[in-house]
Amino acid sequence: MARPIILFSNPWTDLPLEELAQKANEWGYQGLELACWGDHFEVQRATSEDDYCPKKLELLGRYDLTAAVLANHRVGQAVCDPIEPRHGRILPDYVWGDGAAHGVSQRAAEEMMATIRAAQKLGVSVVIGFTGSPLWAAVAGYPGPSPAEVEDGFRFFARQWEPILDVCRECGVRFALEVHPGQIAFDLHSAEMALDALGGRDEIGFTFDPSHLHWQGVDPAEFLRRFPDRILHVHVKDIALALNGRNSILGSYLPYGDPRRGWDFRSPGRGGIDWEAVIRALNAIGYEGPLSVEWQDAGMDRDFGAEEACKFVKRLDFDPARRPEGAFRSA
Amino acid sequence: MARPIILFSNPWTDLPLEELAQKANEWGYQGLELACWGDHFEVQRATSEDDYCPKKLELLGRYDLTAAVLANHRVGQAVCDPIEPRHGRILPDYVWGDGAAHGVSQRAAEEMMATIRAAQKLGVSVVIGFTGSPLWAAVAGYPGPSPAEVEDGFRFFARQWEPILDVCRECGVRFALEVHPGQIAFDLHSAEMALDALGGRDEIGFTFDPSHLHWQGVDPAEFLRRFPDRILHVHVKDIALALNGRNSILGSYLPYGDPRRGWDFRSPGRGGIDWEAVIRALNAIGYEGPLSVEWQDAGMDRDFGAEEACKFVKRLDFDPARRPEGAFRSA
Amino acid sequence: MARPIILFSNPWTDLPLEELAQKANEWGYQGLELACWGDHFEVQRATSEDDYCPKKLELLGRYDLTAAVLANHRVGQAVCDPIEPRHGRILPDYVWGDGAAHGVSQRAAEEMMATIRAAQKLGVSVVIGFTGSPLWAAVAGYPGPSPAEVEDGFRFFARQWEPILDVCRECGVRFALEVHPGQIAFDLHSAEMALDALGGRDEIGFTFDPSHLHWQGVDPAEFLRRFPDRILHVHVKDIALALNGRNSILGSYLPYGDPRRGWDFRSPGRGGIDWEAVIRALNAIGYEGPLSVEWQDAGMDRDFGAEEACKFVKRLDFDPARRPEGAFRSA
Amino acid sequence: MARPIILFSNPWTDLPLEELAQKANEWGYQGLELACWGDHFEVQRATSEDDYCPKKLELLGRYDLTAAVLANHRVGQAVCDPIEPRHGRILPDYVWGDGAAHGVSQRAAEEMMATIRAAQKLGVSVVIGFTGSPLWAAVAGYPGPSPAEVEDGFRFFARQWEPILDVCRECGVRFALEVHPGQIAFDLHSAEMALDALGGRDEIGFTFDPSHLHWQGVDPAEFLRRFPDRILHVHVKDIALALNGRNSILGSYLPYGDPRRGWDFRSPGRGGIDWEAVIRALNAIGYEGPLSVEWQDAGMDRDFGAEEACKFVKRLDFDPARRPEGAFRSA
Amino acid sequence: MARPIILFSNPWTDLPLEELAQKANEWGYQGLELACWGDHFEVQRATSEDDYCPKKLELLGRYDLTAAVLANHRVGQAVCDPIEPRHGRILPDYVWGDGAAHGVSQRAAEEMMATIRAAQKLGVSVVIGFTGSPLWAAVAGYPGPSPAEVEDGFRFFARQWEPILDVCRECGVRFALEVHPGQIAFDLHSAEMALDALGGRDEIGFTFDPSHLHWQGVDPAEFLRRFPDRILHVHVKDIALALNGRNSILGSYLPYGDPRRGWDFRSPGRGGIDWEAVIRALNAIGYEGPLSVEWQDAGMDRDFGAEEACKFVKRLDFDPARRPEGAFRSA
Amino acid sequence: MARPIILFSNPWTDLPLEELAQKANEWGYQGLELACWGDHFEVQRATSEDDYCPKKLELLGRYDLTAAVLANHRVGQAVCDPIEPRHGRILPDYVWGDGAAHGVSQRAAEEMMATIRAAQKLGVSVVIGFTGSPLWAAVAGYPGPSPAEVEDGFRFFARQWEPILDVCRECGVRFALEVHPGQIAFDLHSAEMALDALGGRDEIGFTFDPSHLHWQGVDPAEFLRRFPDRILHVHVKDIALALNGRNSILGSYLPYGDPRRGWDFRSPGRGGIDWEAVIRALNAIGYEGPLSVEWQDAGMDRDFGAEEACKFVKRLDFDPARRPEGAFRSA
Repeated sequence: MARPIILFSNPWTDLPLEELAQKANEWGYQGLELACWGDHFEVQRATSEDDYCPKKLELLGRYDLTAAVLANHRVGQAVCDPIEPRHGRILPDYVWGDGAAHGVSQRAAEEMMATIRAAQKLGVSVVIGFTGSPLWAAVAGYPGPSPAEVEDGFRFFARQWEPILDVCRECGVRFALEVHPGQIAFDLHSAEMALDALGGRDEIGFTFDPSHLHWQGVDPAEFLRRFPDRILHVHVKDIALALNGRNSILGSYLPYGDPRRGWDFRSPGRGGIDWEAVIRALNAIGYEGPLSVEWQDAGMDRDFGAEEACKFVKRLDFDPARRPEGAFRSA
Repeated sequence: MARPIILFSNPWTDLPLEELAQKANEWGYQGLELACWGDHFEVQRATSEDDYCPKKLELLGRYDLTAAVLANHRVGQAVCDPIEPRHGRILPDYVWGDGAAHGVSQRAAEEMMATIRAAQKLGVSVVIGFTGSPLWAAVAGYPGPSPAEVEDGFRFFARQWEPILDVCRECGVRFALEVHPGQIAFDLHSAEMALDALGGRDEIGFTFDPSHLHWQGVDPAEFLRRFPDRILHVHVKDIALALNGRNSILGSYLPYGDPRRGWDFRSPGRGGIDWEAVIRALNAIGYEGPLSVEWQDAGMDRDFGAEEACKFVKRLDFDPARRPEGAFRSA
Repeated sequence: MARPIILFSNPWTDLPLEELAQKANEWGYQGLELACWGDHFEVQRATSEDDYCPKKLELLGRYDLTAAVLANHRVGQAVCDPIEPRHGRILPDYVWGDGAAHGVSQRAAEEMMATIRAAQKLGVSVVIGFTGSPLWAAVAGYPGPSPAEVEDGFRFFARQWEPILDVCRECGVRFALEVHPGQIAFDLHSAEMALDALGGRDEIGFTFDPSHLHWQGVDPAEFLRRFPDRILHVHVKDIALALNGRNSILGSYLPYGDPRRGWDFRSPGRGGIDWEAVIRALNAIGYEGPLSVEWQDAGMDRDFGAEEACKFVKRLDFDPARRPEGAFRSA
Repeated sequence: MARPIILFSNPWTDLPLEELAQKANEWGYQGLELACWGDHFEVQRATSEDDYCPKKLELLGRYDLTAAVLANHRVGQAVCDPIEPRHGRILPDYVWGDGAAHGVSQRAAEEMMATIRAAQKLGVSVVIGFTGSPLWAAVAGYPGPSPAEVEDGFRFFARQWEPILDVCRECGVRFALEVHPGQIAFDLHSAEMALDALGGRDEIGFTFDPSHLHWQGVDPAEFLRRFPDRILHVHVKDIALALNGRNSILGSYLPYGDPRRGWDFRSPGRGGIDWEAVIRALNAIGYEGPLSVEWQDAGMDRDFGAEEACKFVKRLDFDPARRPEGAFRSA
Repeated sequence: MARPIILFSNPWTDLPLEELAQKANEWGYQGLELACWGDHFEVQRATSEDDYCPKKLELLGRYDLTAAVLANHRVGQAVCDPIEPRHGRILPDYVWGDGAAHGVSQRAAEEMMATIRAAQKLGVSVVIGFTGSPLWAAVAGYPGPSPAEVEDGFRFFARQWEPILDVCRECGVRFALEVHPGQIAFDLHSAEMALDALGGRDEIGFTFDPSHLHWQGVDPAEFLRRFPDRILHVHVKDIALALNGRNSILGSYLPYGDPRRGWDFRSPGRGGIDWEAVIRALNAIGYEGPLSVEWQDAGMDRDFGAEEACKFVKRLDFDPARRPEGAFRSA
Repeated sequence: MARPIILFSNPWTDLPLEELAQKANEWGYQGLELACWGDHFEVQRATSEDDYCPKKLELLGRYDLTAAVLANHRVGQAVCDPIEPRHGRILPDYVWGDGAAHGVSQRAAEEMMATIRAAQKLGVSVVIGFTGSPLWAAVAGYPGPSPAEVEDGFRFFARQWEPILDVCRECGVRFALEVHPGQIAFDLHSAEMALDALGGRDEIGFTFDPSHLHWQGVDPAEFLRRFPDRILHVHVKDIALALNGRNSILGSYLPYGDPRRGWDFRSPGRGGIDWEAVIRALNAIGYEGPLSVEWQDAGMDRDFGAEEACKFVKRLDFDPARRPEGAFRSA
């Protein structure tokens, strides 16, 4: 299918956007998923400076790239998380402020609203990101959450995100929650619960990233078939398990690239994801949005990898049948 | 090997200890692992009332049971955890107090010291329990911990537990940290780090429960062989994976017994643990402590299960070779 | 759970019922599933002779056995099948008649109605059996059935069985279609279609026999959880796959016991069925009917096997939790 | 090996042959396997019109294509099948006639003889097709065939096909029975029986299509090594299993492309066939005939797929060793 | 099947035979497989002293034991092996002599003939043992054997063993070569070659020990079905693989019991052998000889294990069907 | 990583070196690993003729090839092996001499020293080869080696190789023992023992060839991570297992290419080696030497295969991350 193949700018936020744009174009990409951290896309300037968005688009246009989606994982994380010092590392100063929990969450929610408005200005209809979770520490931990605590957690989640989704509705933008550990929705059944908590309203959907499902034992294609009209965005990212009896699926606090981890991210096509099944399921549910390479591989040069990934996704993305299904049969 | 087979009293804290003791004896157990919650064993009374421990021992003795170990998971959890409301559910009132984080942790640490002293009074040389963890929310979550944050977390852990271990040394008691999600040590490599953080001091070791390692992909026998002289206690508990493409290893907030969970605990011998490998590894490292049934199975009657479990462990526990190894060879 | 453990009389129809009853009692069974072929249970005599059923019950009663269910697979098969000479082998003469297709089907349907009435007389509330299928030759064959042909096939099935189910309603008996290759319902999705074709009426349900699902790749426990209130009867029968690269799952026309087959039936507990999962799923859906051993194993003496099977099922059948689920949690 | 890579015209019978020929040439194919249905190849015209075959060859020649084999699965199916209405869908009117069973089979047999003669006229030495089977409904169904019925079935098969093979001998053509469910030979052991039933005469052999063996659990390479001199034709077709506990290997009457099926055909290289093993076994037995792409994939555009498949087969088909085997050894 | 269950005396050659006999009887065994080393059975005395055999039988008879087979692996090994110093460890002094290769082999062959004669005197019809191999060092080693060297090796084997088998014929004894690494026959195909080398003469057959096949990847039941009338003796011995990425199947020179080995022997039922498949295959080929426990498990007390093994084999050994196969069919 | 991709000349020793050099250049190789048998590289001439090495280098230079390493497996084998006639097949006449064991070993050791000196003359810093083993016949054979015999074997190994390694030190050359069945080091743990036996001296290291580890069940990447600074050379060679129940891992004396073997070598990328894991482990340990294709595949034309292999290795060999590890993290 002729889906746009784009690159998530996150791993190159150390470079000026123009430098990345030039590379992305050479590597064969058709657009960027802009990270709202570093200076690739600055939410506050986008909302306050009239020419900020047009200039970004003009810059991308010079390299035949579109701005397909905005990504604001970092700020989204602070909307529902119990705030800890490590959040200070990933938030803009003006959101972190004095680091007092309630204020941080409040400012994070406002920044997400601003992100939605900035997306509208940029002409982008999907914002993706994290949500944080008041329940995360209890998942797999001790004491586990009681049913009442789970219910409370989802109520809190809804209370925090409803106003942001109201802005979405206003702006004609949808929010694509990335299903990911640490978020309110991290697997198939919790994704169902998150939709339910928001009454299944139109503005919410999912960013599908098979790598985060794989190590949890969830089949990515089952996830796609379960939510045919809620897949708003797709990350192309691979992962390899490395269980040898001593390594664990939870990774022992070890950094990416350490062979003692139970899994590690991989350049697309070099891990355990069944991409054939993924693309067939995307075809089956009629997903027509971008395929966005979120490149991450601690064992490979990033520029080599990004170029290879683009070629990989092009080979992967084929057209579904145009003829009536079952029109002929095995002979 | 003639290891004592005992029963962890936790699932029966709704019954008076005497009622459980009578059952445990009938089922074939030789001792109890007493839970320090409910009224099976009350730490404050044990330290303040001179006849508390003798009376417990006398009660147990009537049913031919010994008091092999004391278990105080719940209070231990609060020593290093960031305190959340759900901790209120599991702590005694006098530890929870007003629920203000710093005070709770402080009182929890003191209660653990009291538990050690109570153990000494009861004539028990091993206290088992949880430790809590300042890092848990970051494990598998987002943002993951930076190396510096990991280091800080272990330093905090050591600072909190060193004084408790000092009491251990004083009392001739060892503390057997249960390697378990939610604790500072939850898999093989994090268990190494925890020992390192405490300088490998003598008073610390592990409670080995293979069920918690299994779903993380860690081979329980590898764990045993890695820490031959740190296995202070053994929980016999089983677990079955139920991955079918939709269920996840993190369990989607679902309670035990729900078939949508990716795993569930099972009565010993009815799950996926390779007990043959476990008992051989225990023989190989020379573990001579009790085999303590921590019975938990949401799909089975607990009394039926506890009796079956005792028989299972008796069949399981065989003697290693008494002859010199390699004394004969295949013919 | 204290479910009755009974024996399907089919493999012993060469013996007088009394001889089998005596053996069944010695082996530990509590009842029989009577086959309506041979002379274990004769439908026509049961409906026409007033003392036939009381005498059967009296005979069984002498050996402490109940008549739990009636089984009429053979006649049921002819209700929807295109009639071929091999049906002559399994039908009573008065049903087969001249073997002309339409008449055979008609008489088979009437005999099934008679079976229902006989069941009522015997005091039995479940009749089990086959249905035959107008579509079977097209399943996996060539040309496969078109959607319209599938629809027609199910319409034909409903037309044939509705009158029989009307008699069921009249008599307070339910019909438990055995999900089995060669029948209208042979796997999970076709079982859904069969229920739909009958408008989900109350009188229809399934005989669950995991052996027939296993070689098709269907997880028996998934089947149970899919139809919690339609499981009317359970066959305990095992099966072992024997795929070695040359054998095939369809079995090459070879008789049971030939090692060149891709699978073969086995005495319960000696094959590939995950009985632990089956019994837990039966507990979870609240099935309280009999566990009926359908003994078949071409490599074992039948009497030895039937006795062993009874002991196996007794060990297997445990009580689910009586306490509120999730009442305690891992410590 | 420089085997011709050809395309089976079946999936494009909705197009005029010339249109397909042009595409096939552009995609890289060297010949066509002509389907004897639709107007790609009309048996009656070929035998009655002197210039029919030369004109077909001339048309193909314009696109650098050869006519490698003729395929007449549909008519062959009716030679041994019990005739049902669904056969009417696939037979030419003059073979179907009034649909009365005996006459249909008779005319089908005559049409197969005509196909052999047409092949001779076209200069083709292999005709491939189905045989039908009097036993199919009993395979995996109920009641299964008795040994005597199996014997009768094979006798009937021989009686029907002997005269057709006599025409083969006359014309210097061999018949390549496609081993496929619904045929007298559908797996390895039944293929042995079919050869035996025909006394192993020279005119009979097999069309090898690994996709039909794979879901039955048969290793395609074992099949090839078992019949080294009976492999007359090869279909390149792939298949993917999709067993998730609910889907079944028999497919529940569902059309291709439905994710609830237990397997589905795939464009070559995108399924579960071990093509490396297949090509090595073909090399080992010295097969030198065409590799014929039978393209079928309900999830992919057929033109995209056919082009990709041609490239895939070219990459696949390598030369075996030309040097004496074992001439050097690992160092 | 009521096959005799016997115990191989090898692991207890440090005890006087009478002490072992008493134990074996208490453990439930019905006979012994006597080792021809140590003093359990002394070949030279048996052939030269008239009352040696009667006394042995009388001793065994006191404990209700029969002398079912004689085992002389150690001397057999020297018949075809290139003699190395390690052979000195396992041979009687009078066979080893000065250790000069040719003489050792010669004397070993003569001792095997004496063993056959001793067997006759003892009333035993099967002698089991090793053969040694002139080719072993080249198997898996470097340089591998050329076809001519393989042929030479088998010729040498035949030349050495023909005279011994001649004595077998004379004495009415058969020799059951144990298929085992280090012997001329160590897997299925090499067992075929060994039979061929001896022209398939009647006096030769195999001792089947599944443990030695398992780690080589050979399915023991396939071996049995391949040689239905050459299985003269059966060893019941188990084995567990322990491959974790670092361990190797060849075992790194490590002694039994070392967890760094890739496999280790196990008490029967505690390893990876599929005993259900083994016993069914033994039933299918009609093997009626003894089931001889060759007990070896570096991690278990030998007396505990031998008793458990006897019970295990009793449970294992069931009767095959006594009725005509296929006499009834699935309903 | 820009590692040189070279070709081991062994399979083309029937061709003049110049002919192979021309082909290797056309296929894309950058150098050769010269075999010291046949006339590709003649040790005695290299040491005695001053212009031998310069002429070789000049010849290679004409085809843009370097001489990266010298390989002398055949002579090395005889240094520690018990000498058998089959060694005569692989040794130069002047080493074999009269074939008397002691002299052969002595001359083999001297030839290895000469090889080292020749390497120095050729400007090559690594010589690779086999070592032979006094213990091989006892590995997996019978009787297995006693601990004392193992110790003696390693002592003998050290005694034989120390003088050769002394010449290495003198010449600035390292010896890369190929870990391979038949050698003193054949798996991970035996490789540790071999290093220990030589006191871990600098001149010794390993040639890593994953194909020899794979069939033993050893994970090649674990091997690399175990010996990060001892990997001196890498062979790129693939292997496929073919275990079907009858074939065995030890191969039954059968030549390469026989489908009854349990495994066979394969052209790189066409077997079971996880090359992705291998290249990542090589990157992780910082290996910067050549990747040497040791081409061997009994089912493929060698020239076709060698060209394909060169392309395969080029695609395989990617650059590791140049940025600080963990510099960004999943979003």
